Amino acid sequence: MQTGILYGIGVGPGDPELITLKGLRLLKQVPVVAFPEGRGKTGMAQEIVAQWLSPHQVQLPLDFAFVRDETLLAQAWEIAAQKVWHYLQQGQDVAFVCEGDISFYSTFTYLAQTLQQFYPDAIVQAIPGICSPMAAAAALGVPLTVRHQRLAIVPALYAPDELETALDWADVVVLMKVSSVYDRVWQILQRRQLLKQSWVVERVALPNQVIYSDLSDRPHLQLSYFSLLIVQVK
Amino acid sequence: MQTGILYGIGVGPGDPELITLKGLRLLKQVPVVAFPEGRGKTGMAQEIVAQWLSPHQVQLPLDFAFVRDETLLAQAWEIAAQKVWHYLQQGQDVAFVCEGDISFYSTFTYLAQTLQQFYPDAIVQAIPGICSPMAAAAALGVPLTVRHQRLAIVPALYAPDELETALDWADVVVLMKVSSVYDRVWQILQRRQLLKQSWVVERVALPNQVIYSDLSDRPHLQLSYFSLLIVQVK
Repeated sequence: MQTGILYGIGVGPGDPELITLKGLRLLKQVPVVAFPEGRGKTGMAQEIVAQWLSPHQVQLPLDFAFVRDETLLAQAWEIAAQKVWHYLQQGQDVAFVCEGDISFYSTFTYLAQTLQQFYPDAIVQAIPGICSPMAAAAALGVPLTVRHQRLAIVPALYAPDELETALDWADVVVLMKVSSVYDRVWQILQRRQLLKQSWVVERVALPNQVIYSDLSDRPHLQLSYFSLLIVQVK
Repeated sequence: MQTGILYGIGVGPGDPELITLKGLRLLKQVPVVAFPEGRGKTGMAQEIVAQWLSPHQVQLPLDFAFVRDETLLAQAWEIAAQKVWHYLQQGQDVAFVCEGDISFYSTFTYLAQTLQQFYPDAIVQAIPGICSPMAAAAALGVPLTVRHQRLAIVPALYAPDELETALDWADVVVLMKVSSVYDRVWQILQRRQLLKQSWVVERVALPNQVIYSDLSDRPHLQLSYFSLLIVQVK
């Protein structure tokens, strides 16, 4: 018997209508739909696709631990891979959905790599999705990049000089998950006189999306986890 | 009478199934569909959406000149904006389609900005699309970025040290439109021993997509215009 295929489907940043036709077709045709388990509430990817699922489909929440301990992480990924392989080895296809794009800071990477490590026969296919920087630019009504502009995307700040280097190199800088470092970032942008060319988009493409344009008067912002900052440097 | 809305729709990198549900809904409901005119052949965006259009829809090819002369460019954009405004002022919505994402190195930016400059009443809405770096990573079956990786996207190389700086700064580097500078890039990647961690994807998500993995034995490649290179630096 042939094993099933694991489809990794990027379902976009929040608006269920931002899934691709291909993602939706595969999502509807598989018997099993997996997603990262929400912590205490419905996970974001699960919520985005909820309206597209039928009661006949198995829903498979997977725990990705979200801790820093590498051993605990590896254990969580192995258990997730086992759960998925359980269906694949029976010949059933599984769709793993995640918010945004599937290759861009996605939990899918850990699942796919662990699955292929323990079960080398596993077949994996990735379906790209709309990532949040593109969705944010569209929401702002500004281009993300034009012509010869260089783009730097920084997942978060771990060294104070990291943003400085990015601002030196790039024409446009995107800071993902900016909430925990916003105040520090603001200081750097103020010193470089870039606050007027900076935007924050919180929960892009969700019903409660918030846009902050021109950050000059906003040295402090209480932002949710899904917030990004775009700086037009040059 | 209310003026129409200009929708900018990113239709993805090539596979017509990679348009979003939202993009397709708007594309089907507008009376006028505009796109960049192909040079001597059908334009790429026009080809991607061809199967979704009905004979009742006006098809409006727009000439974006694609020259370096700024005056000629500005003239072309103004004529394109006039053509679009002709329908908008009659209350008809226009969808402008372009390949990839609408905010990411897109001709839509010039159309939208020129339109709003000459016709400040014009209403513009952008619908994001799948950009080629994400589609390429999905096609390769590798993550584009994970964890704390910094991503640098370079549209093309105009100074020899530009790639060097990107490789120093980023964990992952994407070179868009790499065809004209491939040989030079190869030399730099060889010196840095990065050829085994580099991929070229040509015409991603099109039926004639070609993937080159491990560039060690490929100092020269004849590539088409829509080719990009991904380097996993660290």
